[in-house]
Amino acid sequence: MPGTFLTAERTRRNQSDRVIRHRSMMLELQGIPVSPGVAIGPALVLDADGYRIPRCIVPASDVEDEFARLHTAVDLVSAHLEHSRLETTATAGRSTGDIFAAQLQMLHDPRLHSELQRRIGEDRQSAAFAVSGVLHNYATALRRLDNPLLADRAQDVLDIERQLLMQLGAVTRQPLSDLSEPVIVLSHMLTPSETANLDRRFVKGFCTETGGPGGHTAIVAKGLEIPAVVGIGDFLHQIAGSNCVIVDGDRGKLIVDPDDDVLENYRERAEYRRSLAVRLAELSQLPAETTDGVRIQLNANIEFPHETAACLDRGADGIGLYRTEFLYLSSDDEPSEEDHYQAYSEVVQKMDGRPVVIRTLDLGADKMGRGNMAHRENNPFLGLRSIRLSLRNLDVFRPQLRAVLRAAVHGDVRVMFPLITTINELRQARMLLNVVAEDLQESGLPYRSDLPVGMMVEVPAAVMMLEHFASEVDFFSIGTNDLAQYTLAVDRSNEYVADLYQSSDPAVLRLIQHSIDVAAKSQTPVSVCGEMSSNPGRALLLLGMGVRNLSVPPSALPRVKKVIRNVSIDQCKAIAERVMKLEAARDVDLYLLDRLSDLAPELVMQ
Amino acid sequence: MPGTFLTAERTRRNQSDRVIRHRSMMLELQGIPVSPGVAIGPALVLDADGYRIPRCIVPASDVEDEFARLHTAVDLVSAHLEHSRLETTATAGRSTGDIFAAQLQMLHDPRLHSELQRRIGEDRQSAAFAVSGVLHNYATALRRLDNPLLADRAQDVLDIERQLLMQLGAVTRQPLSDLSEPVIVLSHMLTPSETANLDRRFVKGFCTETGGPGGHTAIVAKGLEIPAVVGIGDFLHQIAGSNCVIVDGDRGKLIVDPDDDVLENYRERAEYRRSLAVRLAELSQLPAETTDGVRIQLNANIEFPHETAACLDRGADGIGLYRTEFLYLSSDDEPSEEDHYQAYSEVVQKMDGRPVVIRTLDLGADKMGRGNMAHRENNPFLGLRSIRLSLRNLDVFRPQLRAVLRAAVHGDVRVMFPLITTINELRQARMLLNVVAEDLQESGLPYRSDLPVGMMVEVPAAVMMLEHFASEVDFFSIGTNDLAQYTLAVDRSNEYVADLYQSSDPAVLRLIQHSIDVAAKSQTPVSVCGEMSSNPGRALLLLGMGVRNLSVPPSALPRVKKVIRNVSIDQCKAIAERVMKLEAARDVDLYLLDRLSDLAPELVMQ
Repeated sequence: MPGTFLTAERTRRNQSDRVIRHRSMMLELQGIPVSPGVAIGPALVLDADGYRIPRCIVPASDVEDEFARLHTAVDLVSAHLEHSRLETTATAGRSTGDIFAAQLQMLHDPRLHSELQRRIGEDRQSAAFAVSGVLHNYATALRRLDNPLLADRAQDVLDIERQLLMQLGAVTRQPLSDLSEPVIVLSHMLTPSETANLDRRFVKGFCTETGGPGGHTAIVAKGLEIPAVVGIGDFLHQIAGSNCVIVDGDRGKLIVDPDDDVLENYRERAEYRRSLAVRLAELSQLPAETTDGVRIQLNANIEFPHETAACLDRGADGIGLYRTEFLYLSSDDEPSEEDHYQAYSEVVQKMDGRPVVIRTLDLGADKMGRGNMAHRENNPFLGLRSIRLSLRNLDVFRPQLRAVLRAAVHGDVRVMFPLITTINELRQARMLLNVVAEDLQESGLPYRSDLPVGMMVEVPAAVMMLEHFASEVDFFSIGTNDLAQYTLAVDRSNEYVADLYQSSDPAVLRLIQHSIDVAAKSQTPVSVCGEMSSNPGRALLLLGMGVRNLSVPPSALPRVKKVIRNVSIDQCKAIAERVMKLEAARDVDLYLLDRLSDLAPELVMQ
Repeated sequence: MPGTFLTAERTRRNQSDRVIRHRSMMLELQGIPVSPGVAIGPALVLDADGYRIPRCIVPASDVEDEFARLHTAVDLVSAHLEHSRLETTATAGRSTGDIFAAQLQMLHDPRLHSELQRRIGEDRQSAAFAVSGVLHNYATALRRLDNPLLADRAQDVLDIERQLLMQLGAVTRQPLSDLSEPVIVLSHMLTPSETANLDRRFVKGFCTETGGPGGHTAIVAKGLEIPAVVGIGDFLHQIAGSNCVIVDGDRGKLIVDPDDDVLENYRERAEYRRSLAVRLAELSQLPAETTDGVRIQLNANIEFPHETAACLDRGADGIGLYRTEFLYLSSDDEPSEEDHYQAYSEVVQKMDGRPVVIRTLDLGADKMGRGNMAHRENNPFLGLRSIRLSLRNLDVFRPQLRAVLRAAVHGDVRVMFPLITTINELRQARMLLNVVAEDLQESGLPYRSDLPVGMMVEVPAAVMMLEHFASEVDFFSIGTNDLAQYTLAVDRSNEYVADLYQSSDPAVLRLIQHSIDVAAKSQTPVSVCGEMSSNPGRALLLLGMGVRNLSVPPSALPRVKKVIRNVSIDQCKAIAERVMKLEAARDVDLYLLDRLSDLAPELVMQ
């Protein structure tokens, strides 16, 4: 069966290209680099369900303690199940209560206990490590029986595991909330909200088995400036103890138990980055101006109000993209108009008169941390998301628009609609903005309604019809991430097709060039706010294509300013001219790297 | 919460626009028309899991029989569970065997039996109807308890339900396989394979709660020429008995228990269609030629070899698109090279020298009837599918290519690769074709390797780079379905965004026009094989845009030939010129309908 081939193929790839096991204990895994930088530290492993299992080997002297902890945990879970059984039998009848009776039996199964005994006593595993190992194996075996009933029973086993782990202190609802020392988080996946809530004081880097470049997890990691590698494939089972690991967010590597040489080399690289950062920081208050005196507007993309500090620190000219949906990820409740207003006002006031482009909700299934807005779609990226979702949920959209207009009194606020596909959507959104302004007029609250209105250019349809849109907006912002995704028909967070997703693909470049040309002809200001602009080589290309306004993550401001200050527009034009003749993304990237090595070598040597 | 608004919104829409309840018992539901025609007959309702539950009220005299059937079924299921319990306890231990003990207890729950008693005895439901109602309610109640353990138990309840229904003869593995009289199938959804296997002698039409236009279920329905309406929303619970229903596949309506007037009106419409079909059939052996003598190549899209009969009958010039993946849907096993070869040879021989364009596997998650090739993807339409999947699964791809080259000795075979995104993919596919030809050379089997090689133009990236592709293929075929989907960022089978999916969207038209222009300049033959060409109005537009080769479902051959024979190329050019100035799909379609009314009125009046 084809599925089998696929699995075989992936396994083979894992074994040959992706995993290099050195003669020493060092293990080198290849993934997809999504947030640059190098981090070195002890591993913190989260299992597939997001539980934090201490995978350590205990000293012989502690074995008895581990047994004692296990027995206490079993007793507590047992008492809890018995209680549930009695209560449920009383309220829902005996047949329902018997569910718990069956779980109790599993919990006291002698074979379970002899296996736990062996792992703790002989293998010197911690009680939690042993419980997780034995019960996970058992659940997997049940699932493999190809009997839906027994497969279903696996859930009971995992439920018992969870309860035992909870008693053993290995499971918390927020496994990353109570860190006290620096760690590298290794996990099956991280949701965007988990990523957003990572404690930067302690989480120095992370690696996941799943995920792809340009996914929102990757975007958040970049925003937080945490080195990250995703899409490594199955590897967690190979991490046995609290190994020392290196995350190489530049090259997409995870190195477990590095050799001394390797460790030394990475320490040197980390040091180089630190000193480069110090040198680039010196440019922070200088203008983003080319050698021939062309001033480039260099803005920042942010998610959280606190990021304005980094923006100002690094001399951003403004906020080119304020992603407001992250208000939804940090809280369980629907944000109120006041929540929106407070957040926007803080950003606008901090930016002190500099332009702030607020993008309205770009929510889709992939960003839903808790599924509160989720409806089941087979292809959420091609579904009811972003402006489409907003226009159908006016009770959500109106408060946001009201908050934008109210925050606009504090500075230079501009509003931008995402994922505009047809002219009708743009008109509907603009009309709603007018209606909301009239409501505010009546309410007597301070607001401004004369703010510039723009749209993201990120759907191929919008590019094709751009001259029609030009007469109805005040500015365009090209979203290269989504544009590449739809142009290439590739989900950028899908590891299986990650190699096809390239914002430097010549087809994408042609659509970008067309957009820039239409914008120039219609005298509509245009910026590029996708990930593309934060890559120094690709930034050169964009300048050559005619872009004079770039918006990048705060972490990328120094290097993009550096590259801008190192080149002339003529040099960039020559680069663009050459690139537009190439026929593959790979050729484009190799050429850009080559030019960057000439024009700003310090950004290449790492 | 937004999810709530969404639901409220949909419910409101359901209540106001989509459902019209007349003063009589007649009920009118609005959905999305996906396969034209009108069907009238008794309803056959499949529940959400695809089970066929006879939802009938039994005569008082049969109540005792129903009790007897219920008791027999309970005894048989009970014996079966007891057997499983003993066997599992012996092989997997008592804790596992106890799963069945718990199910046995549920099965004998006195409250369950008193409720069944009431429904059969008092409400006169059939045993199957009662079992389905009671156990489904129970499972739903368990799921709502917001306790993962109890929610999980719901699966046990549904499992008991399934076993009882199986004993009651209400559940078969293939619920649509043993029909003996004409029915209209009403169901939550139908997979493409279920649709493909519908027995056309008895299934006169179908309606589903989910789905959208252009999905593969819709394509299969069109191919089978069964009137169909999808995306109606929740309605199955409103269908109580074996009502008489009308499926209006032209206007997307499902009418339950029609009034006499309505029934009469629909009978007249059905009669009009029949007489139009007779008149159009007279054109079948005349050429598809415009009034000014331009010969249009009019081909057919097929899935199954048996469809060649309809193609020849209706005078198709050839097969413009043979969708080979349907071999995968009609069988549980991976088709062998021989299976491919037999199917292709049959088509080629039947077509007797006429061109046959074989498209290589276009498999994706949405077409997977049994999940044998399925790997979990969040956005399968943007994932590892079609040529991407083939190039990574050479053990599947090679046998297909071998079969194509072998079948080519029987006639005019051409091979076409789907979803080509980059030039590298095309080169890889062509290279593999060469390798396979060399293998065949060695094997001594008869084959041809000089056949024309083409590609689908259905990804925006391919359109943007088309002049690069032109020098490396022998022909293009524009797939308007996928092209519209990616250009507009809309999943065409997603009911929530169905209104945004229009292959007549001006942005899509510009990409099509660009493709036609590049093809003309490079002298590469180009055809259009998407759904767009089967709509007579849109076919006129395509002729005006320069297309001289159309491929349509066999059912559409008569009307497309009719419209071609009614117009001149100059008339079509004038239409295209006007259309290219419009800015919304709706404007395009209204204008095309207007022109069609002038040029081929008999195709509009229905």
